[in-house]
Amino acid sequence: MRRAIALAGNGPSNGVNPQVGCVVLNSAGTIIAEGWHRGAGTAHAEVDALSQLTPEQAQGSTFVVTLEPCNHTGRTGPCAQALIEAGVGTVVYAATDPGYASSGGAQRLRDAGIEVIGGVLENDVEELLEEWMLAARLHRPHVTVKWAASLDGRAAAHDGTSQWISGPESRARVHEQRAAADAIVVGTGTVLADNPSLTARTPEGGLHDHQPVPVIIGKRNVPGDALVHEHPLEPLIIGHNDLHAALSEMFDNGIRSVFVEGGPTLASAFIAAGLADRLYIYLAPVLLGGDKVALGDLGVGTLADRIDLNISSVERLGADIFITATPNRKDA
Amino acid sequence: MRRAIALAGNGPSNGVNPQVGCVVLNSAGTIIAEGWHRGAGTAHAEVDALSQLTPEQAQGSTFVVTLEPCNHTGRTGPCAQALIEAGVGTVVYAATDPGYASSGGAQRLRDAGIEVIGGVLENDVEELLEEWMLAARLHRPHVTVKWAASLDGRAAAHDGTSQWISGPESRARVHEQRAAADAIVVGTGTVLADNPSLTARTPEGGLHDHQPVPVIIGKRNVPGDALVHEHPLEPLIIGHNDLHAALSEMFDNGIRSVFVEGGPTLASAFIAAGLADRLYIYLAPVLLGGDKVALGDLGVGTLADRIDLNISSVERLGADIFITATPNRKDA
Repeated sequence: MRRAIALAGNGPSNGVNPQVGCVVLNSAGTIIAEGWHRGAGTAHAEVDALSQLTPEQAQGSTFVVTLEPCNHTGRTGPCAQALIEAGVGTVVYAATDPGYASSGGAQRLRDAGIEVIGGVLENDVEELLEEWMLAARLHRPHVTVKWAASLDGRAAAHDGTSQWISGPESRARVHEQRAAADAIVVGTGTVLADNPSLTARTPEGGLHDHQPVPVIIGKRNVPGDALVHEHPLEPLIIGHNDLHAALSEMFDNGIRSVFVEGGPTLASAFIAAGLADRLYIYLAPVLLGGDKVALGDLGVGTLADRIDLNISSVERLGADIFITATPNRKDA
Repeated sequence: MRRAIALAGNGPSNGVNPQVGCVVLNSAGTIIAEGWHRGAGTAHAEVDALSQLTPEQAQGSTFVVTLEPCNHTGRTGPCAQALIEAGVGTVVYAATDPGYASSGGAQRLRDAGIEVIGGVLENDVEELLEEWMLAARLHRPHVTVKWAASLDGRAAAHDGTSQWISGPESRARVHEQRAAADAIVVGTGTVLADNPSLTARTPEGGLHDHQPVPVIIGKRNVPGDALVHEHPLEPLIIGHNDLHAALSEMFDNGIRSVFVEGGPTLASAFIAAGLADRLYIYLAPVLLGGDKVALGDLGVGTLADRIDLNISSVERLGADIFITATPNRKDA
C-alpha cells in the first residue's frame, strides 16, 4: 500500500478527481503492474494497471489501491466492474470513496465474490486526499482562507497602504499555495482596489505550471480592462454575495479546492459562515494599530461564541510567522 | 570570567543593583576567592571576594569581575578604591559600567598603576544585565509591554468578555514574568474594570518569592477597597498620564524594570511613545473579530510609519503562541 500511495502522488493534486495509485501482485506476492490516475478524463489507477496485464495475469491477482474502486460511469467506466470482469482475486484498499454517485464499489466487488479488504493505511490516504474528500462529502470545494496581517492583526495602515506587509518568503509561499488550489477567490472590492492578476507566479516572475481559476464574488461590475481578464484561465464571475451558492457554482464547475485571498470583508464572511476549512495566516513583524483590521466582524458577540482553532503549525518564514490552523466545527 | 558570570547569577535579578560576580586568582592562576553581589545595601562582588582574603593574598592578585568596578560611594564605598588600597595587581572585567555616577572605575584603577583589561565576554554580560544596563543608560526602567490576544488581534469579544483567552501555560508564564520584574504597571481603567490583585502567583495560587511593586497610572481614583491594596507591597499611584514622568518617578523609587499589563490603552500608549523596550505577545487559538482590539491607535498613519519589530522567539505554549519581540528604534 505504501508503494500505491507513492504512485498516487504521481498524479495531479488539483481538480475534480483524486490522486489514486494502484499496485498489482500475483499469487507469489510479486508486483506485476503499477498504475496511477493522471487526471480527469484519463484512466483510473486500477484500469491503468489492468491495461498492463494479460488476461491470464489479471485472473486471480491482488489489486492494492489507495481508494475504494469506483462504482459509477463517468468519463470512464466503473472500476469495480472492470475488476470483476478481469476476474481478480482480491482487492485491498485504503480509503472509502465518499462520493455520492461513485461509492459502493467495495460492496459490488464483494457481491461478485471477490475478497475485499478496506481501511489499510486509511489515515495516510485521508490525509493525502483531505481536500478532495471534504469536497466529495460536502458537495462544495474545500476552502482555505488566507490573510496577511501585522502582529497586531491589521491588514493595512490607517490610510490603506499595505504593500508589502509580509516578506518575500511569505509571498513566494502564497504563490505556491495559489498554484496548489483549483481556484483563487476574491471579492469585487479587491479587484476594484488592487486590480490583481490572480495568477500563481514564481519568485522570478514566471507563471507556475498550474494556475488557479480566478473567481470573483460580489455584485459590483468587474471592469473590462481589469488585469484578471489577462489570466490564462477564464475568470468565473459570481454576481452575488451568497457564499453557499457561490461554492456550489464552483463545485459544479469542477472546482474542488479554493484559496480565498479576498481581503478582510470576504475572509471574515467565509469564517463567519463556517465555510473556512483551513486558515493560512501570515503575521509580519510590524505593528500598525488603527482601524484597518485584517478580519472584521465575525458575528462573535461574547467570548462563549468565539471561534476556536486548532493550530497545526507555526513556522518562521523569513522575518514573518506563518500559521496554519483549522476552525473547530461546533457541529463536529 | 565564565565562573564569574555564573557567580553573578547567584544574586537577585531585580532591583536597583545589577547581578555581578567576581573571581580572584593568585599569581599561579589558582582561584583563591569568589564573590557576588547579594542586592542593594550589601557588599559589591569585589568587596565580597576581598573580604575572604588576607592582605598578603590580595596583594598582587588578579580580580576577574563581570562589571567594571564602580567609582562612587553609595550605600557602599567605591570598589575601585578598595581594590587600589588592597594593592591588587590586575583587574579583568566584562561590561563597562554605564551609570552616570558610578562609571570611571577602570580609569581610576589605571591611574593607580593597576593593569586593567576590559571587554572580556562583554556580550554575555550585556545580555545578562540587559534591563539594568538600559535603565542605567536611559535613567528610566526597562519596559516590557505584554498583551494577550486572539489570533486576529482582539483582547476581548464584542461585549468585553475576555477571561480567559489564553491558556493555563500562558498564565503561569505571565506570573513568572511578573515575578521577574521590579514593578507591574496598569492603568486606572484596568483597576476599575477588573480589580486585579497585581501579585505574581504560582499555578497553585501561592505567591512567588519576589513580588513586583504595583504601579497604577491614570487620573481616576483607585477605590479604597481595590484588591491592589492587599498586595504585599504598597502600590505606587501615579495620578497622571505622562508616561515619561511616570517612568522617571518609578526610577527614582528604585524600579529598574517594569512589566506593563495595563490593557489596550496603556499598552498602545507605551508603544506609540517609543517606550516599549520588549514585547511579550500571547496569541490564543481563537478568532473573535469585532471592535475590541488588543492594541488601539499607535499613531501610524501610513505604512512607511509602521513600527518594525525584531521577533526574537516564537514558542508554542500549550495551545497558545508566545512571541517575544523588540521594536526597532528609528533613532538607533
